[in-house]
Amino acid sequence: MSTTVFSADLRDIRFVLHEVLHTSETLKAFPAHAELETELIDSMLDTAYDVARDQLHPLNRVGDREGVHFADNACKTPTGFRDTFKELAAGGWIGISASAEFGGMGLPHIMDTCTGELFTGAAPAFVMYPGLTKAAANLLAIFGPEDKKALCCTKMFAGEWGGTMCLTEPGAGSDVGSNTTKATPSDEPGVYHLEGEKIWISGGDQDLTDNIIHLVLARTPGAPAGTKGLSIFLVPKFEFEADGTLGARNGIYVEGIEHKMGINGSATCAIALGAKHACKGWLIGEEGQGMPIMFHMMNEARIAVGVQGLSAAAAGYQYAKAFAAERIQGVDIKDFGNAAAAKVTINRHPNVRRMLMWQKVHVEALRALVYDTTLKADVAHNTTDPDIKRELDGHVELMTPIVKAYASDKGFDSAVYAVQVFGGSGYTQEYPVEQIVRDTKISSIYEGTNGIQAMDLLGRKMRKGSGVLFLNWLNHCNEELERCKELDELKPLVASFEKARDSLGNSAMHLGALGMEGKLHAAMLQSKNFLDQFGNVILGMYTLQQARIALTTLAAGGVSADDEVFYKGKLLNARFYMGQVLPMALALGKVVTSNDESVFDDSLFV
Amino acid sequence: MSTTVFSADLRDIRFVLHEVLHTSETLKAFPAHAELETELIDSMLDTAYDVARDQLHPLNRVGDREGVHFADNACKTPTGFRDTFKELAAGGWIGISASAEFGGMGLPHIMDTCTGELFTGAAPAFVMYPGLTKAAANLLAIFGPEDKKALCCTKMFAGEWGGTMCLTEPGAGSDVGSNTTKATPSDEPGVYHLEGEKIWISGGDQDLTDNIIHLVLARTPGAPAGTKGLSIFLVPKFEFEADGTLGARNGIYVEGIEHKMGINGSATCAIALGAKHACKGWLIGEEGQGMPIMFHMMNEARIAVGVQGLSAAAAGYQYAKAFAAERIQGVDIKDFGNAAAAKVTINRHPNVRRMLMWQKVHVEALRALVYDTTLKADVAHNTTDPDIKRELDGHVELMTPIVKAYASDKGFDSAVYAVQVFGGSGYTQEYPVEQIVRDTKISSIYEGTNGIQAMDLLGRKMRKGSGVLFLNWLNHCNEELERCKELDELKPLVASFEKARDSLGNSAMHLGALGMEGKLHAAMLQSKNFLDQFGNVILGMYTLQQARIALTTLAAGGVSADDEVFYKGKLLNARFYMGQVLPMALALGKVVTSNDESVFDDSLFV
Repeated sequence: MSTTVFSADLRDIRFVLHEVLHTSETLKAFPAHAELETELIDSMLDTAYDVARDQLHPLNRVGDREGVHFADNACKTPTGFRDTFKELAAGGWIGISASAEFGGMGLPHIMDTCTGELFTGAAPAFVMYPGLTKAAANLLAIFGPEDKKALCCTKMFAGEWGGTMCLTEPGAGSDVGSNTTKATPSDEPGVYHLEGEKIWISGGDQDLTDNIIHLVLARTPGAPAGTKGLSIFLVPKFEFEADGTLGARNGIYVEGIEHKMGINGSATCAIALGAKHACKGWLIGEEGQGMPIMFHMMNEARIAVGVQGLSAAAAGYQYAKAFAAERIQGVDIKDFGNAAAAKVTINRHPNVRRMLMWQKVHVEALRALVYDTTLKADVAHNTTDPDIKRELDGHVELMTPIVKAYASDKGFDSAVYAVQVFGGSGYTQEYPVEQIVRDTKISSIYEGTNGIQAMDLLGRKMRKGSGVLFLNWLNHCNEELERCKELDELKPLVASFEKARDSLGNSAMHLGALGMEGKLHAAMLQSKNFLDQFGNVILGMYTLQQARIALTTLAAGGVSADDEVFYKGKLLNARFYMGQVLPMALALGKVVTSNDESVFDDSLFV
Repeated sequence: MSTTVFSADLRDIRFVLHEVLHTSETLKAFPAHAELETELIDSMLDTAYDVARDQLHPLNRVGDREGVHFADNACKTPTGFRDTFKELAAGGWIGISASAEFGGMGLPHIMDTCTGELFTGAAPAFVMYPGLTKAAANLLAIFGPEDKKALCCTKMFAGEWGGTMCLTEPGAGSDVGSNTTKATPSDEPGVYHLEGEKIWISGGDQDLTDNIIHLVLARTPGAPAGTKGLSIFLVPKFEFEADGTLGARNGIYVEGIEHKMGINGSATCAIALGAKHACKGWLIGEEGQGMPIMFHMMNEARIAVGVQGLSAAAAGYQYAKAFAAERIQGVDIKDFGNAAAAKVTINRHPNVRRMLMWQKVHVEALRALVYDTTLKADVAHNTTDPDIKRELDGHVELMTPIVKAYASDKGFDSAVYAVQVFGGSGYTQEYPVEQIVRDTKISSIYEGTNGIQAMDLLGRKMRKGSGVLFLNWLNHCNEELERCKELDELKPLVASFEKARDSLGNSAMHLGALGMEGKLHAAMLQSKNFLDQFGNVILGMYTLQQARIALTTLAAGGVSADDEVFYKGKLLNARFYMGQVLPMALALGKVVTSNDESVFDDSLFV
């Protein structure tokens, strides 16, 4: 641990991967991952940790202070970004979960997630470049034009070319359906000419790769209004031959970059298509399929934002814990007023311990949520059993908005706590915690604001199949509770938890009833509170689950002294969570069912 | 209202000052403020608003982007700071509440607070310079050495000289008692030589004034350890004659400045005393009186931090409200899926309305809390009735940590909501809201972290006179509830509120019992949760009070159409608060009484 150098809790990462999720056993059952031994996972984690700490983290501060340099329609990334991007690519990390067909390692997404936690925690702005490149390539791997797919994917997973997703326009942010960028068929077969403006495009230009493949939403002539009329196009920075030789510069240019609160090392670009000269695009899939195809990338991106939230919480906690163990300030409370008493480190002060514990339990429960969701997506992807696939897909669908929104919000809160633990030092740029707050705030906004996630959860996911996704989750949760009840230490905690679970169920019923009565505004008013209540309860469940597994392992005996401390920490987590975090779920339940609609009075906010 | 230019809700400020607090009637009863007519207050508010918007606000962005330039032991403030400082001083604003004896206007502190809300909201970093100058001069006006007091105060209130408070040292932040700066009597009568280092000194150097008067905590030879051994010294940047003529440069030099998350326009300095050459200081008060004297300034500063929190919340809300009323995005929920439906401004979306309402009710209730506390301090200062003085002083004592901590925390949360309402735009520096988040985070840290405030509340203020301060507050609160119960619209809201009030009382009893049992750690563990619960309940009470006054005024009739909307908004505030904010107080009550002490396990955080 260090107060300024990135560190990670590999012990807890391994606990979740191996002892809770049994990742190796679970995935080895599928031919694609038959070789995914625990030792392989651990050795990749070790390597990823070294890369994160030694190669990526040194870019974090310089990226923040230098920012991106923009001139002549081109972006220059901060010092060191280019070399490290090449190294990361050479290590195979961009193609970690890509098919061997495209030069990838063919590993499951869970390996992307757990190594991604380390990479993003070390240098979130830098990781945007490989992250979006990978996400764009993943989309192309499924939907890309046959004549370009293999080349683009291979180049992108190898880090030779970059990738972006171009959705937002000046008048179309959350409302993607208002996109106005035009795509007109040209005389050249299969080629469209694109015209329009896109904004907030991460990595819209950079000096890391020879070419950039933009995935652009645009509207073809005569296409209907709204999202149904959108198509998606492959728009390269440079045209290219079938062998990858680069050709003419395409008419897509960065016009400017945003100056932001954080992630300053990531180029956030305003892009003009077809303004200087023709901008060529190749249709991906069919006309009108833009949104469903883009959603494939969006769902992956939303989980990735959850990873960002987790990584912000985790990195912040590690720094805060290290600082609190070093910083000497004041005396123990019992010695108040005794000037001669020994000074203590601030981790002896009750309120500092409370803040650290809040961070600890959130980090560890968010990790459980994010990893579990990713692993279930992997199993859904690999299974040949349609029932299992349907159920797991449903689970991932339900969890995606919660992973995105709850992890990003709690990641932010946790980073703010890290600053508070540091005190005045945390407010200075001498320590990395204030940057985490600035960097991670974007997570609650992009890839669909957290308000949009709440609408997705309540308006789509909760309604699907008359609530079957929620009921399935509830059944799984209850199964876990039954297991927990077998342990005496957990019985009182389960009893507390059940009240919160019931309150959540009550909230769901209440909002469902509002929907049935056509009171959509009243229901949606509570969508974010409902998501927060759900998130709070879910983390409580994971906290209980981990305590159960830890206690069971302890009871089996033969545990090292270090592990004894670790496992005991899981019981402490559960006690703290049920005592000091879960009550918020009950309060949110009261809010959700308050029937207060005062905000809709027309006299307000005009 | 504008999305980029500072604006303020003068209507609500006047409501609190005149209709709730009856400021003019209350203070005119005292000879010192016999001329404080409502018209005078309003005209000063109008002028202050013009100054805030037209003179101060233009410095806000430039101060953030340029920051302070440091070279050769000197700080250069951002472009425009010097001229505006002179203008502000010429307008008499630094001496607004100073005695006429020192060239001040002699107005009550409530005028400092309400105009301070406007100034700080417009340019918080800039306002640190006049704010600390004023606070230091206020201390000197009471405790300053007789031969220097009049000159220093006159110069400082006129803005010719600046002022600082020098407490923190590298090893002594929250733990002021660990100060090691030495003050040794010299051969020159009354003169001490100071040696040591101070850090995080706001305005430790600047180019705004000809001289700077530092108030420095230091330890005299043989002084006892801890805070009891601290004395406070007047340490000028330049020595001066009795007529104000500047003399030799004193041995106090800035060695460096901090690079921070925000308030970049404010010079945060590391200072060396007596390192280059002798640093002379003149004792203020008597040896060993440093802390009690400094606390006079600290208490004032803590209320001022509450004003900062309020002003961050208020400014953020004004920007967010304006943006949400302009930004068109998506269709009304009832038209979901209908691409042809009219697009609406985002203030039509339920979750955006919820966030705006959260901001509105917090701004208006925090304003009530901060103004009411200041006015009570004014009355306590002026009254000749010892019983009233004792009671009001007690009230202010009890409220000070809550004003400081709860206003700064909710101000931060509210600023974060403002960014969220802006969405991606809010994350860019094109709009002012992300800067509010960065600037205002310091409020929860300096002048005693919010954790320290919570310890002060629970460990000192709640215990004082066996809880008499709390009981007095409870009585006042209950009197207000009785008045509210006379109105049918408020009855159900009062019933909700009473549950939260009872939960707060229960928390107080529980923590008191822990204290009696000697369980100090367990009690202090919940100190911040208790402060938050108290703050939540207090804001609920002010929200009810305002609704009562608004409804009474409406019932009396003869109200303009605009005012009808305004008063109705107060009832909506109360409904929203009791339905959607107050439940958090019940949850915090559960947490406070949870008896969960898991954080104290020694295996944690090592």
